[in-house]
Amino acid sequence: MPFTKHSKTTLAAESSAKKTLPEKPVIENKAKNIDGRSLAIHLKEDLVKRINVLEREHNIRPGLAIIRVGDDQASQVYVASKKRQCKEVGIRSFEHVLPGTIEPEGLLDLMQSINEDPEIHGLIVQLPLPKKFNSPEIIQTISPQKDVDGLHPLNLGKLFCDIKGGFVPCTPKGCIKLIHSVQKDLKGLKAVVIGTSNLVGKPLAHLLLKEGVTVSLLNAKTKDPKSLCSQADIVVAAAGVPYLVQGDWVKKGAIVIDVGINRLVDGQGKPYLVGDVDYDAVSKKAKAITPVPGGVGPMTVACLLENTVIAAENFYSS
Amino acid sequence: MPFTKHSKTTLAAESSAKKTLPEKPVIENKAKNIDGRSLAIHLKEDLVKRINVLEREHNIRPGLAIIRVGDDQASQVYVASKKRQCKEVGIRSFEHVLPGTIEPEGLLDLMQSINEDPEIHGLIVQLPLPKKFNSPEIIQTISPQKDVDGLHPLNLGKLFCDIKGGFVPCTPKGCIKLIHSVQKDLKGLKAVVIGTSNLVGKPLAHLLLKEGVTVSLLNAKTKDPKSLCSQADIVVAAAGVPYLVQGDWVKKGAIVIDVGINRLVDGQGKPYLVGDVDYDAVSKKAKAITPVPGGVGPMTVACLLENTVIAAENFYSS
Repeated sequence: MPFTKHSKTTLAAESSAKKTLPEKPVIENKAKNIDGRSLAIHLKEDLVKRINVLEREHNIRPGLAIIRVGDDQASQVYVASKKRQCKEVGIRSFEHVLPGTIEPEGLLDLMQSINEDPEIHGLIVQLPLPKKFNSPEIIQTISPQKDVDGLHPLNLGKLFCDIKGGFVPCTPKGCIKLIHSVQKDLKGLKAVVIGTSNLVGKPLAHLLLKEGVTVSLLNAKTKDPKSLCSQADIVVAAAGVPYLVQGDWVKKGAIVIDVGINRLVDGQGKPYLVGDVDYDAVSKKAKAITPVPGGVGPMTVACLLENTVIAAENFYSS
Repeated sequence: MPFTKHSKTTLAAESSAKKTLPEKPVIENKAKNIDGRSLAIHLKEDLVKRINVLEREHNIRPGLAIIRVGDDQASQVYVASKKRQCKEVGIRSFEHVLPGTIEPEGLLDLMQSINEDPEIHGLIVQLPLPKKFNSPEIIQTISPQKDVDGLHPLNLGKLFCDIKGGFVPCTPKGCIKLIHSVQKDLKGLKAVVIGTSNLVGKPLAHLLLKEGVTVSLLNAKTKDPKSLCSQADIVVAAAGVPYLVQGDWVKKGAIVIDVGINRLVDGQGKPYLVGDVDYDAVSKKAKAITPVPGGVGPMTVACLLENTVIAAENFYSS
């Protein structure tokens, strides 16, 4: 595929080479760091207030069920973090762990009982599921009213048609909040979204379209992605390719959102996380940029909590 | 809005001015005319065979109900054409005309009875509805299994997620067939879709994404649409702006699909139809181009008939 993984070391070397030019000292314009952790904290503070209203006035405490199948290690870490943050804001969470050997019927039976449980307002199935499961079919059996991950086709269809009352998937919802923290009015801007998944790229494109943005969706087959990218006012990288977006891919003053979470290992065998964007190089040109970690990740979980609160509010008002 | 309506006369004048240059005779590369009428006839011949199988082997004759509300003249013409073409291929059509004064409940009651009628496999509500109706809400009450216009959010959601078994909206479905008649493999190509409606632009973008195309969606707020357009291998114009796409908007060898149907009036007060593309100018640069009329229009109706046949086939196999 034409998306090439770049080495940060090479880029750092190139960058320092430039710095040695004696006659043109580089004036570094450092981009605003979009602090996802701090924005997530603000959002969660707001959620605590809404949850208090639900409890005080309607005797409802939001409940989130999380189903995890098999022993995927990353899933265990993610679910633990979601449960911890539920507790922080006052959402009751219920983790259901099923063995990877379970038949789809067993999973569907559990989902059915959760769909019918009035104490549970949100239900998510932690992805990825083991390979024998047809994930899109499983997701279709979540009650759309409890689909706080926003992945049921009816909710994606509502997003598509701009019909209110559906759930917006958490990562793209978080991305839009991160963009809005820098710039409110996006009308007429050009955005490039790299990656066309159902979880991120496609729903995010619709959220941007709704704001009057001109959106280009790039995939792994795109020839010369750099060329389209360098015309964009907003760049969202969700390709899962470390250091894909380099300094010369981004135009001066762009807003850059890095959705990538890539696990690499350093020379000493120690694991570390990097995004799809070469932060150091790009932050010299961008107006604002999200770090990895601490950018999109915290906002994704905060948006899951927000969707769960919305589900509980809908339950009360329905 | 930056989409400017251009006068064909001006363009013709410019074009003839160029022709007077004595030293550089213009060699006109005329694009292939994508003949939507002829492709629609082929599709309908295939449908006749499928309908014969349904009747002979399963005693099912596809039935399409069309609801028309009020006295919109263009709607009357469109519905008459749909009914005529249903008859041609062997689909039974049932037109229900309701007065513009009817309350939404009256329309919803009729829709409910059609949703439950086993003789009817497809139901469409001719748009636009009079202003007092909330069209997206009305469309949500069509049974998704009978939504042969493909506009129910569940069907759009399935298109979004690439889940089989939904209905694809007729105009974008027709556009993809028209593009495929010129080029089968679209992987890695760049497309520009001008216009982001739920009926055309957005679903078409998803169909193109599915084929591995890099898609840019342009709207009326897009600054310098010509610049993005002139980089595209495929241009789809669905903006409703006469002569929007001019010769210098299109790169040599592009495939151009004109979805526009604009009713203009000539100097003698005689009405005529034009698209969103300046056919004469663009056809000198494009590899292939659809005319207006005779391009997208006939394929849209043929795809409605195809969706109705699919609905009847699903009814049998369900």
